[in-house]
Amino acid sequence: MNAVAARRTATGYHPGDGNGFPAGLRPENPGTAQEPEDGLPADRRGTVPMGERRGPPDEKPGEPPEPPPVVTFSPSACLPPLTEHELEVLAEVGRQWAQAHRARVPREGGLPLDPELGRQRVTPQPSRFSRFAPVEMFRAEAPDELVATAREPPAPPRLRTQSRIRRVLLGPPLGSAAVVQERMRKLVGLPVLSSDLLSSVAYGPEAMLNVLVLAGSAALGLSLPIAAAIVVLMVTVGVSYRQTVRAYPHGAGSYIVASDNLGHRLGLAAAAGLMMDYILTVSVSVAAGVDAISSALPGLAPFAVPMGIVVIAVLLGGNLRGVRSAGRAFAAPTYAFVLGIALLLGFGAVQAARRGFAPVPAPKVAVTQALGVMLVLRAFASGATSMTGIEAVSNAVPVFKPPEWRNARTTLTWMISLLVVMFAGLMVLIHLQGVVPRPNQTVLSQLGRRTLPAGPLYAYLQATTALILLLAANTAFQDFPRLLFFMARDGFAPRPFLRMGDRLVFSNGILTLSVAATVLFIAFHGRTHSLIPLYAVGVFLAFTLSQAGMVRHWTRVRGPHWRKSLVINALGAVLSAVVLVTAAIAKFAEGAWVVVAAVPLLILLAVLIRRHYDAVGAATAARAVPEGAERPQELRHLSVVPVARLDLPSLHALAYAASLGQPVLAVHVSPDDEEDERFRQQWESWGDHVRLEIIVSPYRAVVPVLTGYLEALHLVRPDITLTVVLPEIVVSRWWERVLHGQLPPRLRRALRDLPGVVVTSVPLHVP
Amino acid sequence: MNAVAARRTATGYHPGDGNGFPAGLRPENPGTAQEPEDGLPADRRGTVPMGERRGPPDEKPGEPPEPPPVVTFSPSACLPPLTEHELEVLAEVGRQWAQAHRARVPREGGLPLDPELGRQRVTPQPSRFSRFAPVEMFRAEAPDELVATAREPPAPPRLRTQSRIRRVLLGPPLGSAAVVQERMRKLVGLPVLSSDLLSSVAYGPEAMLNVLVLAGSAALGLSLPIAAAIVVLMVTVGVSYRQTVRAYPHGAGSYIVASDNLGHRLGLAAAAGLMMDYILTVSVSVAAGVDAISSALPGLAPFAVPMGIVVIAVLLGGNLRGVRSAGRAFAAPTYAFVLGIALLLGFGAVQAARRGFAPVPAPKVAVTQALGVMLVLRAFASGATSMTGIEAVSNAVPVFKPPEWRNARTTLTWMISLLVVMFAGLMVLIHLQGVVPRPNQTVLSQLGRRTLPAGPLYAYLQATTALILLLAANTAFQDFPRLLFFMARDGFAPRPFLRMGDRLVFSNGILTLSVAATVLFIAFHGRTHSLIPLYAVGVFLAFTLSQAGMVRHWTRVRGPHWRKSLVINALGAVLSAVVLVTAAIAKFAEGAWVVVAAVPLLILLAVLIRRHYDAVGAATAARAVPEGAERPQELRHLSVVPVARLDLPSLHALAYAASLGQPVLAVHVSPDDEEDERFRQQWESWGDHVRLEIIVSPYRAVVPVLTGYLEALHLVRPDITLTVVLPEIVVSRWWERVLHGQLPPRLRRALRDLPGVVVTSVPLHVP
Repeated sequence: MNAVAARRTATGYHPGDGNGFPAGLRPENPGTAQEPEDGLPADRRGTVPMGERRGPPDEKPGEPPEPPPVVTFSPSACLPPLTEHELEVLAEVGRQWAQAHRARVPREGGLPLDPELGRQRVTPQPSRFSRFAPVEMFRAEAPDELVATAREPPAPPRLRTQSRIRRVLLGPPLGSAAVVQERMRKLVGLPVLSSDLLSSVAYGPEAMLNVLVLAGSAALGLSLPIAAAIVVLMVTVGVSYRQTVRAYPHGAGSYIVASDNLGHRLGLAAAAGLMMDYILTVSVSVAAGVDAISSALPGLAPFAVPMGIVVIAVLLGGNLRGVRSAGRAFAAPTYAFVLGIALLLGFGAVQAARRGFAPVPAPKVAVTQALGVMLVLRAFASGATSMTGIEAVSNAVPVFKPPEWRNARTTLTWMISLLVVMFAGLMVLIHLQGVVPRPNQTVLSQLGRRTLPAGPLYAYLQATTALILLLAANTAFQDFPRLLFFMARDGFAPRPFLRMGDRLVFSNGILTLSVAATVLFIAFHGRTHSLIPLYAVGVFLAFTLSQAGMVRHWTRVRGPHWRKSLVINALGAVLSAVVLVTAAIAKFAEGAWVVVAAVPLLILLAVLIRRHYDAVGAATAARAVPEGAERPQELRHLSVVPVARLDLPSLHALAYAASLGQPVLAVHVSPDDEEDERFRQQWESWGDHVRLEIIVSPYRAVVPVLTGYLEALHLVRPDITLTVVLPEIVVSRWWERVLHGQLPPRLRRALRDLPGVVVTSVPLHVP
Repeated sequence: MNAVAARRTATGYHPGDGNGFPAGLRPENPGTAQEPEDGLPADRRGTVPMGERRGPPDEKPGEPPEPPPVVTFSPSACLPPLTEHELEVLAEVGRQWAQAHRARVPREGGLPLDPELGRQRVTPQPSRFSRFAPVEMFRAEAPDELVATAREPPAPPRLRTQSRIRRVLLGPPLGSAAVVQERMRKLVGLPVLSSDLLSSVAYGPEAMLNVLVLAGSAALGLSLPIAAAIVVLMVTVGVSYRQTVRAYPHGAGSYIVASDNLGHRLGLAAAAGLMMDYILTVSVSVAAGVDAISSALPGLAPFAVPMGIVVIAVLLGGNLRGVRSAGRAFAAPTYAFVLGIALLLGFGAVQAARRGFAPVPAPKVAVTQALGVMLVLRAFASGATSMTGIEAVSNAVPVFKPPEWRNARTTLTWMISLLVVMFAGLMVLIHLQGVVPRPNQTVLSQLGRRTLPAGPLYAYLQATTALILLLAANTAFQDFPRLLFFMARDGFAPRPFLRMGDRLVFSNGILTLSVAATVLFIAFHGRTHSLIPLYAVGVFLAFTLSQAGMVRHWTRVRGPHWRKSLVINALGAVLSAVVLVTAAIAKFAEGAWVVVAAVPLLILLAVLIRRHYDAVGAATAARAVPEGAERPQELRHLSVVPVARLDLPSLHALAYAASLGQPVLAVHVSPDDEEDERFRQQWESWGDHVRLEIIVSPYRAVVPVLTGYLEALHLVRPDITLTVVLPEIVVSRWWERVLHGQLPPRLRRALRDLPGVVVTSVPLHVP
């Protein structure tokens, strides 16, 4: 709990800022966005790719809870600022450095060239080894500062094709300045944020009927009461989220609300639930979209799995490219889908009115399972997948035009109203038309075929259904990487998830989601009804924790109307928890066990990752009590040059080592006494300029003998830094490496683990 | 041709010194064994694992041909001596070095510790990072010399299990001194060297009948005339090899005889043929051995492929372990097999005598192919596989007791006599007993069942057949790695094949053979008759080139009786060539095309490898005209420290760079201007001790920007050696690396290709 208290305000979380939106939210006050409002240390937030550090845990328990600030998706998130304390430590380290260093090398004027490439600027021909066009790539801006100007450095020939394919697929790189924000008005926000929610009615009702039908035709009569219960649930959870929007006007995903109020373990539980949710959103939406298409074109049914994989690949490519400035365009399909459902309900109502609202008798279905409480609960849990995506608005409050929270809340109300109307209307229409689930045709498609008067209208319904399901899957591609970004910022996920690719998207998160969703999709043969049992658990886990977090929030904050809000959120939490437990138990054997098992594992993994980062942070923090290695005057050197043969690479390495002006020791490992003598003779021919130590290795091992010798030297004089100067041949083609053995890389790998050993590679390039 | 002339006497080749023999032949005069008798430069012979070089081509055309000396399989083959010329160059380089270097660092007394670990010897506790128990591992022998004493350095905990499994399977490491030679008398040499040859009668006759039977029962009558032709071939080639043994008393494999006399391309052709031969010896012998077993125990027939793979795996393991001191034990199975065949022939003769030598009529076989010349030729070529292995003695002359060549020649005569008796006897017996090939039972097994009076005798026959086939396969495991050793010594194969593992065997060659043989075995479903068409081509290619080389040899050397020898070798060459062409044409479509295609490809590959080594050798040879990099006084330095964040690893790297006393430049790559400012502030807090250059990279690329910048610096001042001092975090478990990104390894890989850049890794170990 304490660890979380310190971290709480350092993290703002809004994983879902819409569908196809620009990948960054720039807050109103960019200057303070990088610093939490309460000035708490930001030591939990960053990563440094090349030699990282974390500040010491800086706990301040009992801090009064504050609404968390917005945090941008900044490209420099991996290089977070230092705290005041850390800057002080640094200054102390620097003072001790200064005395010695200034005495030896003058800071100014000591460089043999102009690092700004200014006066000496030349435009030489790039060499054979040129990987990148030099010089022209940089523009001097200010003193001490260069700007890389090329959009993309020209690749070396062997990478050129690869690079070109990449550019064609993904487009040119985008500058960091392209992180901008669009603000939406309600009529735009509504469709953009609701595709995930509204698309759920394409599979939710069917999922419920699929369970009921097991108990035969008679059980189908229960569909309407269950639907009514789900509508109550929708309204309750919706109203509950209205409270969240008001309390967290800067956006409040389940992860941040639960972490803030319930501690980091429950926050991670919510995050794990959300991760499963996003993965399943992709799998289920793609599966349902493919169903919609193959219901209209039955010939495509056998290709469901490959079609789904292609769809996920397209989503992957599009999101790696960054689906930018398409936000508004995404509004159309949602409205088109709503229109399609409206037409269906309208024509259905007219037909039913003509019959005097007498239901068409459903075809007889054989009973395969007895009707019991468990079956009803399963049907309820399956039907509740119709409300997945309801949390989208609460995550994305800041993308609305001001007053943000009020606009967001209004939009949420509209969304829930639409959802309730569509869901309830469809359930009634299904009942009136006597539709039962069939293997090769979705319920929605059956309704369309029976109800809509013309083929084109039916085709329109199926097409918009497929389209909105695709958009829903795309939402997960936006939200999942951002969730991982926030987790990585808190140290609960690997730091590579912080990295923005050259298209300003979180490529690692996008790839992870694609792989996970594809694996699930293939494992369940792309069947929607097989995937549904996994779906509800993760979603309702996040719902429950988010609402429960709000309950705790109100008991602490006690703003206006807090009692009313508390009751509403408590009701939402209890109902969500009921669905969660129902889904976990009733559908355990059908697949829910996957999620039930995965959530604790993900929490454990996150905690272990955080523990590792904390340990590394403590070990790499700049220390006020220097241990010597930070102060150049306290370093003593010995260069060790392993020499196999007195050839050009070895001579280069020896010359390099000698030219540094530090003591040099050459080491030769000889497999037998004869070779020993031969080498000694070479050495003496050369002139015996450097102290040579020959180690006879009668078992012909080289790497263990050298590492053992270096470790022995280190143990004899631990205060000396041993620099191993390795002569290395660099060949120009990868396959030529096979011809030169693996000794240098093996040696380098073994030497990495030795304390007090620095490894220097002196390359010799051969044609 | 010239390139070969220079190399000729530097290579002794005797790939086949027996079955299960110690892996080295130490010559009578070990002192000179490393130097060719004629004092030619040995610059073609060596490899240096860590920074290699080759001397300049030192052609001496028109050198009178001398019998090549024996060359040992020395563990120091990868560290060959330098030529006189190279030593002179080295001395010149050293003289230029001396002036500058001595002035700066005193050679003696300059070291801060005793490199012999003598006076300061301590026995400290190994640290947490200890991969190897230190100090105790070494024993000071002479001045400037240590000997690694531990048989094996203790592995770190994470490798301990792996290391223990390895030791259990392969045994403890063997010292280089264990390379010893056993000398054999004729009665031991005969069985040891003949297992490959004599085992061929287990599949040769059947291979011939398998072809004839296609033309129906009538064609089987042709088996005796064809067998007679093969006997003539056997005798001719055998007598021809007797000439080779006399001319090359130090051992003469086909590769060396052909290279010596016909040029390196034909030598490589012989080597390629031999390589195919050895691979196929394993595949065919294992397949035939499995056939022998499953003929006796038909229940095992469906498991032929897995059984064969297990057998190859056992051979692999045994040979990696080094089947040592088992040489003499290998004599028994060969004699046992000869006894088995003798019993078979004896009982068969008695039975036939009782019938008045009237043949049992063979069962009718349907005609599937017309009897034509091509079919007869195919049968002949298939039957000729009975003489594979005939070259073993000529390869292994030096392992006999003196007078080596005479003992070897006598043994060869005995072997051929045995082969002829066994082969001819079996062919006659097959004819008399009316045996035809059947799918699930070998011909030998059928003969045994019909002829031998008791079950145990039949079981004995099958068991000894399987055993000798196993030994034959084992022969290839001895010879193949040695062939590659010699090719690698000549620069025609990758140098890792020179390396002797800690069990004194050429592990890389053994592994390569196992993989190739397994692939072939699986590709042909472990069926002997499918593999046979591939077999003859490689073998007879090597035979032909070896005999043709002898013809050329006699025209040049003209020793006693050279005319007679020339005629015999010419006859052998012509007959071998006939079989070669016959096999290549007649069995082309059945699989011989694999070999026909593989041989030129292998030659091309070998030539390309040699060309690469020559280029590398020229590029890495110590040069008499120094270019600066060999002379420490001409090196100018600039250390460049990429700093992402001012944490402990970066401070260590900065301190390390500064302590070397050379100019230091720190470089920071910033993704945007905000981060730029933040970093500048940190830098000033620290004290701005080192010149800092900030590069803003608006596209967030780090590696290309840094490499581009370094290349630009190099192009501005190519005379300066840029040392990139990389701060690196070293984690203790491999999976933790995922958590720290791949920036340092990616940067190191990119920097390898830059000219004038030395990379120094300053590690910081974290728990």
